[in-house]
Parts: sequence; structure tokens; C-alpha cells
Amino acid sequence: METIQQRFAVTFSYPVIFTQQLFDPQNPKLRDFLSQYGERDFRKKIFFCIDSGVLAAHPTLQSQITHYFESVPTLSLVPEWLVIPGGEAAKNAPALFDQIVEAVDQYGIDRHSFVAAIGGGAVLDLVGYAAAVSHRGVKHIRIPTTVLSQNDSGVGVKNGINYRGKKNFLGTFAPPVAVFNDTAFLRTLDDRDWRSGISEAIKVALIKDKVFFEWLEANAKALAQRDEAAMQYLIHRCAELHMQHISGGDPFESGSARPLDFGHWAAHKLEYLTHFEVRHGEAVAIGIALDTYYSQLTGRLSETDTQRVIQVLHELGFKLYHPALAEQDSVHLINGLREFQEHLGGRLTITLLDAIGVGVEVHEMDTVLIQKAVVVLQGETV
Amino acid sequence: METIQQRFAVTFSYPVIFTQQLFDPQNPKLRDFLSQYGERDFRKKIFFCIDSGVLAAHPTLQSQITHYFESVPTLSLVPEWLVIPGGEAAKNAPALFDQIVEAVDQYGIDRHSFVAAIGGGAVLDLVGYAAAVSHRGVKHIRIPTTVLSQNDSGVGVKNGINYRGKKNFLGTFAPPVAVFNDTAFLRTLDDRDWRSGISEAIKVALIKDKVFFEWLEANAKALAQRDEAAMQYLIHRCAELHMQHISGGDPFESGSARPLDFGHWAAHKLEYLTHFEVRHGEAVAIGIALDTYYSQLTGRLSETDTQRVIQVLHELGFKLYHPALAEQDSVHLINGLREFQEHLGGRLTITLLDAIGVGVEVHEMDTVLIQKAVVVLQGETV
Repeated sequence: METIQQRFAVTFSYPVIFTQQLFDPQNPKLRDFLSQYGERDFRKKIFFCIDSGVLAAHPTLQSQITHYFESVPTLSLVPEWLVIPGGEAAKNAPALFDQIVEAVDQYGIDRHSFVAAIGGGAVLDLVGYAAAVSHRGVKHIRIPTTVLSQNDSGVGVKNGINYRGKKNFLGTFAPPVAVFNDTAFLRTLDDRDWRSGISEAIKVALIKDKVFFEWLEANAKALAQRDEAAMQYLIHRCAELHMQHISGGDPFESGSARPLDFGHWAAHKLEYLTHFEVRHGEAVAIGIALDTYYSQLTGRLSETDTQRVIQVLHELGFKLYHPALAEQDSVHLINGLREFQEHLGGRLTITLLDAIGVGVEVHEMDTVLIQKAVVVLQGETV
Repeated sequence: METIQQRFAVTFSYPVIFTQQLFDPQNPKLRDFLSQYGERDFRKKIFFCIDSGVLAAHPTLQSQITHYFESVPTLSLVPEWLVIPGGEAAKNAPALFDQIVEAVDQYGIDRHSFVAAIGGGAVLDLVGYAAAVSHRGVKHIRIPTTVLSQNDSGVGVKNGINYRGKKNFLGTFAPPVAVFNDTAFLRTLDDRDWRSGISEAIKVALIKDKVFFEWLEANAKALAQRDEAAMQYLIHRCAELHMQHISGGDPFESGSARPLDFGHWAAHKLEYLTHFEVRHGEAVAIGIALDTYYSQLTGRLSETDTQRVIQVLHELGFKLYHPALAEQDSVHLINGLREFQEHLGGRLTITLLDAIGVGVEVHEMDTVLIQKAVVVLQGETV
């Protein structure tokens, strides 16, 4: 009998919409999206999962949402909410995953209805995963509330939870149906979270877009002083570059195409070594500094370019060293290389810099030079 | 700030390969597939999950596999196996899901390595789900061992497990990288399982392919007598029609395109009402008979065509009635309509017949006529 060859393409499409005060009754963006999405001959539901940290900073959020949906008569707002503790803890608790699945069942959310998540990256990752596997995928809307989730994780196609301490061990590639980036949420971030997400913009600029890096240099002071207009531009451009990388490559990473992970091998390990006391964006800033010095030490990157990178990180207020980097002569840190390879599978692939705006992939790293780069970083801390 | 519109297509491709004695060292099919798949510059692993029922019928299977992989030096066979109890029970035990995820972790199966499942539809569904969400998807190979899984569920793109009694409540759309249909496994099936999967071939013929239905009529006796050549043709043609439906439509069912589910609303409910004592294919045969009579009672289908359908089901040895259909004046059965709608979401959509080979979708059913069709079926049982 002859082999039957199956072959088909699935098209994914979603907007990332920028707005202010998403739930202001005067703001039509969410209402318009929902009323135009999908088929109109039956009544859809929408169920909200909200980050506890966001709710604490925006105590009237639930009543705003309730009020907003009074003007959307074509949709049923589920009158209950799931409030989910924010931060990495959200991804370590299988019970939270169960709660979301339970809610999908209890409130009769079907494959044409919506589960919306409002929160930081961890809450979005958890809710996105639960939505993706319930009924083999209910429609998912992301409303990221941090710089990091608005410019990076929240606009991409991944979700996931940790499994017995292994980061993102369970998850899927499942694009949302829409992302709403609401600037108003950024105002209540603490300074660490405001700064944190900026490192992903530096990352993508360094490997892809010199002009954007120059913009970051010119605006570092304004960003450090919480200039909202500058932050809006940063988020928009970073999200755009991130999304172009996904659509231009291998969106579901079925081959060996790499995600945008410059500076990330060390960042993941540092988060873990510090029990996530160092936040993701902070760890990425350190990882960028480390791999930038490493790029210089291996003769790829000029002294001038190296100093520009370090300078912009300093101006933004990032700390570029943590004692965990040097523990046991950096052996813990260097173990992170193998773990990074294991998670992505296949050959070790690390992005370095040939110049500002020019990333390059390598397949091995010299441990002595990594140790040296750590020592240089240590010297940077005054 | 302007909306960023994301849009990309992901291409999925996999062969369904027909063979005999897959693990005979002389059979190059699996070896060839594995050595040609993906990138070649690192050593991949393969981990097997095996249906306990298959292992009982093929006690030398593990040693055959071990021996086979001695001739595949480019690949590492994980020397441990996971033996999974076959049948619907496999999908009701979250602990089995955990065991597979655990094994992926323990044996270091990364996104470029393979998890292979050998078994009936339930085991394939469970293993496929665990593989799809581990590391956001390790490569999955299906080796279906029943008629039903070789011609229908195993060649498609879905997986899933039950959640608190809700059928396939958790799952994904995740195509395998290859399917191997080995005829040798069919020889050890009991008569019920041999017959069971034939109902999916009747289903797809009735709604899509009159010529195939005529072939089924002509070969019903041979099939009932376990003619292997006839069964091979049936499986190949049914798999082909099933796969064409997927690739020609909406493979991941993101809109309202329907899966191939003629006869299935009643079948799902009947399986549930009988605690899965009635097997899926047996229930589908009854569901087909019910919706065929219903099509006649509503004036769509001619008396002659109706009798041809019933005749072929009889010749194959299917029972076309079960007392659970009539319980409480069929109220239990009729509840299945709403549950069927809820699982798929959106409007109720049921496939009926306008003629043999011509399916038609309707959006409501008349409960009185359903009750009447049940009474007709009851009269058929002599």
C-alpha cells in the first residue's frame, strides 16, 4: 500500500492593539474587536483571569470591567473572576492550572468563547497554557500589564508552566486571538518592573537593529526617569521586532531556528540560582552584559561597542553583577549552558555579537573566557 | 500607536506509511524515516510507550524493538519502556500523563527526539497529548494497532485525555511526525475490535464517497470473515478520505468547520451511558443507523438507500440497538445533543444524509423523530 503524505498549512493571525484605559466605556477597541471576531450567529462568553498584583494596584478594575461589558450586549461576561497570584509562583502551582480548567468547564466556555488574562508574563503564561489545552484550545486574549509582557513575552506565541522546578517544561505554541497593550497599567509598576522589561528591547536592538539601539542610547535617561512617551515607543518597536522574528522564522520552533535569546542562557540560570529574587529582565540585563564582554574577549566585538552596551545598561539603572555568577568559580553558572541546550534540544546554540545590531550564532563557549567575563562584570560593580 | 498585525502560516507534514512487521530487521521503513528526519548533526533519542494489550498479544515486541535498533546506530533507543493500560481507562488517569512527562524529563527527550506510541486509539491520544505539551512539543510517532486507530483517529491531528469524566476535555491539535500502520498488529485483535473500526469507513463513505460505499457493500462478507487484503484496502481508503478532510478544511478547527462526525453525537453519549462497555466503533455503527433512519424520517433519504446502509451494517455483524438508547424515553440520549454542541462550541451542527455519499449539515433535530428512530432501531433487533 502506498504511503499517504499529509501536508497542510495553518494560518495564524492576531493584532497587538495599543491603547490607554482599555476598560473606559468610551474606549471602543476591545468592544469592536469582540463584536467583529468569529461568527456572529451565537452568543459568546468571556471569562477573566486577573493577576492579584494588578488587582491590588487597580482595586476598581473588576467594577470597571463589569461596567464596560454593560455596553457590549452581544457578549456574556462571566460574572465570576479568577484572581491568580502574580510572579513566577503562578507557574509552579499545578492547582492554579486546574482551577482555570475547572472554570472553563463550570462556566461553559467553549471553543468559540474567550478566556482573557490580565497580568504579568507569568500569569499570561499560565492562563495561556490552560486555555490552549481546554477543549483543545479556547480563544485566548492577552492583556499584559508589565513592560516585559507588553514588549516581549505577551506578544509572542508561547505559553507554559514549570514542572517540578523545570522552567516551562509544560506548554504549547498557541497564538492568542488578540493582545491589548494598555499604557495605563505601566503607571503603577514599581521601578524594578518598569526597568526590567527594557532589557528585552536592548537585546533585540543589539542583535537586529542598530538604529533602535541608538534610539535607546539617546533615550536612556528619559526611560530611567519614567518618561511615558519614550516607553510607549520602546514597547511598540520591541514588540514589532519580536513579532517579525517569529513570523519571519519558524514560529513553532519545529526545526533549529532559534528564539530571540541573546543573553538568556545565563539569565535563566541566574534567576534559578537566586530563587527568582533577580527578576527576569534584571537577569537578562546581566546576561547581555556577560555575553557582550564574552563577545569582546573572543575578539568579535570592539572595545567601543562593548562600552556603549555597558553604558546604556548603566544609565538605565541595571545592576550588572550578582554574586551567584561567581559561586564555585562560576561552575553553577556554566552548568546553565547544558540546561539551556537541553530545553531547546539539538546542538548548543548561543547568540553573540559581531557588532551593535549584528548577532551571530556559535555552538560552543569557552568556560575560561566565561569565568573571565564574570570577573570583568564584578569589577564593574562599584 | 498603530496596531501591529501578526500573521504567519505554519506548515505541517507527515507520512502515513503502510507496512507489515515494522520491527523486522529486514524492514527498512522505520529506520529510513528516522535517519532522514530532521537535522543530522546530533544524536537523537527514541522512547517507546506501549499499550499493555498489545504487549500481551505480542510478548516478544520489546526484544524485537531492541534488536531492530541495533541496526540503527545513528539513534539512541531509550532502554526503558512505559507500558500503558489500553482502552478508555488510559485517558481517565492523570497519573499516566505524569508518568510520560516524567519519562521525557528523566531520559532527556528533547524537542528533536522522538516519543513513539504503540497501541490503540486511547493510548495514542494520551501519549500524543503528553508529547505535545512536553517542552512545548517533542516529536511524536504513532504506531496504531487497531482498525479504528489505523484508519481514523491515529492518522489525524488530535490528541487528548478526559478530565473528571469529560471526554477529551484536555488536548491539543498536534500532528505526529509520522504514522506507521502495521497490518501484523490486526491479526491479534479480537473480533469486536476487528469489526469496530469498520464503522468509521462506513461513516466517511456515506457522507463523502459513494464508490467507496459500494466497495464496502461488495466486500462486507469478506470483511466480516477477516479477509486481510480487504481490510488493508479499507484502512488505506478510509485514512485517505479522513486525511483529505483535514487538509482540505480547517485542520485545527479554529472556525466552525466540522470534524467528520456523522453518527457521532449519539455514539459519544452511548459510550458514556454504557460506561464504555459499548466500544467506540460499535457505538458509531449504532449512531450511523440512528441518524440514517432519522434522515429517512425527515424525508431526506430514500427508503432504498436507508435499507442499503442498514444492510451493510448487519452484514458486518454490528448490533444496531442498545437498551440505553431508550432509557427514560430517550431523554438521556437526547441530552447528548447539547453536550455534543458544548464540546465543539458554537451552534449545534449535525451531519445527516441526503443520499449515499452525500452528507448535509443541519442545526436542529426533532426530538420526537429521534425517539421514533430509536423505536425503529429497537424493532430491527431480532
